[in-house]
Amino acid sequence: MIRYNNDYNHGAHPEILKVLVEDNDNAYGGYGKDEWCEKASAIIKDVVGDENANIHFMVAGTQTNFIVLSAMLRHPFNSVISVDSGHIVVHESGAVENTGHKVETVPGVEGKLNAAQVEDMMENCNNSPTYEHITHPKAVYISYPTEFGTIYSLKELEDLRKVCDKYGLYLYIDGARLGYGLAASNCDLTIKDIHRLSDAYYIGGTKCGNFMGEAVVIKSEELNEDFRNYMKMNGALLAKGWLIGLQYAVQFRNGLYFDITEAAVRKADKIQEAFEEAGFELFIKGTTNQLFYVLPKKVMDKLAKDFIFEFNHWVDENHGLVRFCTSWATTEEEADALIKAVRSL
Amino acid sequence: MIRYNNDYNHGAHPEILKVLVEDNDNAYGGYGKDEWCEKASAIIKDVVGDENANIHFMVAGTQTNFIVLSAMLRHPFNSVISVDSGHIVVHESGAVENTGHKVETVPGVEGKLNAAQVEDMMENCNNSPTYEHITHPKAVYISYPTEFGTIYSLKELEDLRKVCDKYGLYLYIDGARLGYGLAASNCDLTIKDIHRLSDAYYIGGTKCGNFMGEAVVIKSEELNEDFRNYMKMNGALLAKGWLIGLQYAVQFRNGLYFDITEAAVRKADKIQEAFEEAGFELFIKGTTNQLFYVLPKKVMDKLAKDFIFEFNHWVDENHGLVRFCTSWATTEEEADALIKAVRSL
Amino acid sequence: MIRYNNDYNHGAHPEILKVLVEDNDNAYGGYGKDEWCEKASAIIKDVVGDENANIHFMVAGTQTNFIVLSAMLRHPFNSVISVDSGHIVVHESGAVENTGHKVETVPGVEGKLNAAQVEDMMENCNNSPTYEHITHPKAVYISYPTEFGTIYSLKELEDLRKVCDKYGLYLYIDGARLGYGLAASNCDLTIKDIHRLSDAYYIGGTKCGNFMGEAVVIKSEELNEDFRNYMKMNGALLAKGWLIGLQYAVQFRNGLYFDITEAAVRKADKIQEAFEEAGFELFIKGTTNQLFYVLPKKVMDKLAKDFIFEFNHWVDENHGLVRFCTSWATTEEEADALIKAVRSL
Amino acid sequence: MIRYNNDYNHGAHPEILKVLVEDNDNAYGGYGKDEWCEKASAIIKDVVGDENANIHFMVAGTQTNFIVLSAMLRHPFNSVISVDSGHIVVHESGAVENTGHKVETVPGVEGKLNAAQVEDMMENCNNSPTYEHITHPKAVYISYPTEFGTIYSLKELEDLRKVCDKYGLYLYIDGARLGYGLAASNCDLTIKDIHRLSDAYYIGGTKCGNFMGEAVVIKSEELNEDFRNYMKMNGALLAKGWLIGLQYAVQFRNGLYFDITEAAVRKADKIQEAFEEAGFELFIKGTTNQLFYVLPKKVMDKLAKDFIFEFNHWVDENHGLVRFCTSWATTEEEADALIKAVRSL
Repeated sequence: MIRYNNDYNHGAHPEILKVLVEDNDNAYGGYGKDEWCEKASAIIKDVVGDENANIHFMVAGTQTNFIVLSAMLRHPFNSVISVDSGHIVVHESGAVENTGHKVETVPGVEGKLNAAQVEDMMENCNNSPTYEHITHPKAVYISYPTEFGTIYSLKELEDLRKVCDKYGLYLYIDGARLGYGLAASNCDLTIKDIHRLSDAYYIGGTKCGNFMGEAVVIKSEELNEDFRNYMKMNGALLAKGWLIGLQYAVQFRNGLYFDITEAAVRKADKIQEAFEEAGFELFIKGTTNQLFYVLPKKVMDKLAKDFIFEFNHWVDENHGLVRFCTSWATTEEEADALIKAVRSL
Repeated sequence: MIRYNNDYNHGAHPEILKVLVEDNDNAYGGYGKDEWCEKASAIIKDVVGDENANIHFMVAGTQTNFIVLSAMLRHPFNSVISVDSGHIVVHESGAVENTGHKVETVPGVEGKLNAAQVEDMMENCNNSPTYEHITHPKAVYISYPTEFGTIYSLKELEDLRKVCDKYGLYLYIDGARLGYGLAASNCDLTIKDIHRLSDAYYIGGTKCGNFMGEAVVIKSEELNEDFRNYMKMNGALLAKGWLIGLQYAVQFRNGLYFDITEAAVRKADKIQEAFEEAGFELFIKGTTNQLFYVLPKKVMDKLAKDFIFEFNHWVDENHGLVRFCTSWATTEEEADALIKAVRSL
Repeated sequence: MIRYNNDYNHGAHPEILKVLVEDNDNAYGGYGKDEWCEKASAIIKDVVGDENANIHFMVAGTQTNFIVLSAMLRHPFNSVISVDSGHIVVHESGAVENTGHKVETVPGVEGKLNAAQVEDMMENCNNSPTYEHITHPKAVYISYPTEFGTIYSLKELEDLRKVCDKYGLYLYIDGARLGYGLAASNCDLTIKDIHRLSDAYYIGGTKCGNFMGEAVVIKSEELNEDFRNYMKMNGALLAKGWLIGLQYAVQFRNGLYFDITEAAVRKADKIQEAFEEAGFELFIKGTTNQLFYVLPKKVMDKLAKDFIFEFNHWVDENHGLVRFCTSWATTEEEADALIKAVRSL
Repeated sequence: MIRYNNDYNHGAHPEILKVLVEDNDNAYGGYGKDEWCEKASAIIKDVVGDENANIHFMVAGTQTNFIVLSAMLRHPFNSVISVDSGHIVVHESGAVENTGHKVETVPGVEGKLNAAQVEDMMENCNNSPTYEHITHPKAVYISYPTEFGTIYSLKELEDLRKVCDKYGLYLYIDGARLGYGLAASNCDLTIKDIHRLSDAYYIGGTKCGNFMGEAVVIKSEELNEDFRNYMKMNGALLAKGWLIGLQYAVQFRNGLYFDITEAAVRKADKIQEAFEEAGFELFIKGTTNQLFYVLPKKVMDKLAKDFIFEFNHWVDENHGLVRFCTSWATTEEEADALIKAVRSL
């Protein structure tokens, strides 16, 4: 069986594992104050083009989202704006609300939020006759790419930045799959744009070749104040923090991170072509490593003999929404096997 | 100027004030352990027909909502289901989220939630492949009447009770305007039905003739456990609790509560007739003391000369959504004045 | 039976009640935006000598404490320093912790905190090798007078102000019994000093002649930002806010507040003299309206025939710690009765 | 330089690393639903002698503490009892309070809590005249071994169990260093006793040979309800959960965990002997892998040339409190070097 169900079903990229093994006899300072975290920070600062950036190494994505947002939301009644399909809305068991803050949702279009929606919400809030009876948004949450594998254009991101500036909102980008988003064929921006246009974001590791770990980048000193306390208090300050620093140092010293996520997206592109040739259009026009299809039950059964893919829900009696996901670990052989199977549908 | 903007712009019913004055030289035990609270509890238990009911006297509505819900939601990831126009969703500045819990919303129809919506949400939750990544609803929030002045029929409430029983959900009824709801011309239930079909509810005082205060009724002993601690911890345990007990004792000993809210609704009925005759249909078909209309700007200006009413928002350039609200304090003269003004539009 | 158990066992001062009755037919805007709250704010600003002060009318004391502190504590890991006998530590059911913040305690001396204790705690925190593993104090909580009826001298308050300035801490004063404190025979400061030396405090109403209500005074605009949202979200924004504004307007327009609390303290002074003559020393040397004694069981039984006083705990088999409390409502006759009874012990 | 500063300065035991490398090409299900977690659970259940136990694999210790405690504390005003030197009190940046709960502290004796202290606190709570103004303890927190390296005897633990049963309290044991505690020369209990006498505890991995990870054991089904949601909501549900399961499977399949922690404690015993011979008594009579000494500055300087140890604070001008910590990674050579250095002081 070949796994296409998600992008976190394999351990770590062999290059990372190799360095981990070689380094195992060394000893380090605790809680992220060590040579590896320093080195990884320096490399990432260089890659994103900002030596004043603040880098923190978290363990996991949900943890990262609720911690950064709780640092952004000054008052308990400050809320964060998100599309209704946002990861923080539907996949994190109410983690943001557990920190005491409301997520104000708007309907997403292909999983994306647009500047006009933010503008509307802020105008309604600021002009409300019951200003003290409502929440006050203070941050905007988006993910790049979105839950549906779509990406924001440079123009769309710039518009979001403008509207955030206009209303004093932080812009936070969930980059759990950042590498896959930047490798999309229609991507017209770079990680430096992500850095320039947001206030904080994370460079996802777990889904992009690490054993685990997410690198949060925080731009302003104000937002970064005592951020390590946020981490500690929420159980995100790993005693052996160097284990995550090491992985990022390996990923970014020679561009490994970008190479392996790009390779995964190219495989997804080819799989998508095969599906298209076989007469199946993407359910949502994503361009990254996630492919969503509505497939007839018969097709699902056929593919399920050799491939594990994610079942989402039944669209009607005979059709299910499913997801095929390539990853850094997907081999050429695995891609070819799926393409062949799709062509022979 | 005559105030129709809300039902909390006057002090207390004269009968309440009279007893308060007569009683001012007496001394009582603190924090709701006093003769007035005992007496009021006994009367309310009698009125709702359950001598095992637990009655607590709170100060205000938002306070009551978030405290009762936080007592109902055992786990931090337990959520409460509400329509998207629910008071807890749009008018309480994120108070429920501030207790750490998510409000899961569904679209309301005339402000109401129906059993099928609850069933759908619970089926989706229970069958979710990502059960631990979502919130688990544990309570249903409705208000009687709703934000739009509509009411649930006995059948609708019974259906909600059934679906709550099926899925182990508490049913909580926000009764800020309970008196006005029970007085609606199309109401086919009594306060005993409210009691029988819910797990907890409150009998609104602030908007129904009290200076302030809301009487929470909790049925089960389990839910009532240490409820006074919830009150204390959240600042709802009034040192001079007897002040609220006294108001409820006066309101319920001879049916004052029901009489004065019914009188207010009869006035609203007549005002509605006048609007209808003048060619204005209710925006939402409420039958209680709140009347929502979309009025031309010119009409708004005309009425605004003598009446204060609540402006909601501009529907288009020339039409605004407004609310006229009668209350226990609305006099016959005030009602006649508005009726006359509407007829001469 | 004459009640000396606390200072909140009677309704409101007759002068307040009179205005309330006269005013009952008038209508007002909701949620504290009304003429009475405006008037009361203006008078209070005048009394405390700062026209830029921000005044908010809360319902109750615990509510006031946790709301102001949660506004002061920017980060979830910010804590507040208090003596271990502080009201927020032992009498509020964990209300501050319920907002997510730790109360860092130090041992009180006669219920008081001193500047050296604050200095020590801050030095330990700032020099801690595990800075991100501890909480960071951001506010100091004291009450004036303390739980034991003792008061801070002007010098002690000035020292606390200095240490707060040195370490960037807010100084918050719980003034539930502020009137009684300012009336103490050894008091060497005024309400203007309280205002000058703190960042926020409240002028207690519930225990000082109101039906209910506490007036919070917040000095800085920064701390005052969106404070009404804190109130709403926590159920402290009373729909009929003018009811509290009215009480404060009456209390402060002619100094009623200061007169009635002073009278109560003078009665306490005389009662204390009587106890002293009878051979009983105060357990803690308070000088306000609260008198704490360790009494033999026999004496307790004797006094309990005619007086209700608060039992605290058994010190040994034959001695209990008890509290006698005068209030604005204590009459001359009641005071004489107790003095007579004590003298005849 | 040889590191004795803590027990988390090295990666993982080579046997764990070996399996991790061999397994890196395999793919697994996400979020702890995989073969490794199943296998590790089965082995641990066997080791603790309870096939009905529930095992969850967390990432880190602070995370584990606040999550388990928040699951134990049903009501927001429920508190947990701990000694004032407890890890949750002084080393977790207010993590428990951040979940809304107060930690009620009592003075520890050599870092330990005793049953009489719990009994006192519960009697005070249950008999309090202000029952609703205080917190209600619902759990007891201890660590085995304590922060000072001391351990509870079987009798002491049984007494704590009894008092917990008497008052309906959960007993939670923080086992960050459980292996080192069970290896103490004066230990008179086994992991089966830990299991039998507590309601939940964790078997520490990070400090005992893992890269990271803590295995929580929860006994009752009631407490275990939806525990995975607690994990997800708090960011503790690792996407690649098998990485932790694998480490525990290796640690427990042949007793590696017990062997390597025992070896570390034996080295600490010898180092302690050397210090004793050199005239230095332990500051606190611990018997595990942590040795606390008050050393003259001159001695500290001498040892600091070759060894890294933890400095705690200055006891007086010339003496500092320091900690030497052995670990599973401490080699015989490293132990000999320190012993030699101590002997030549």
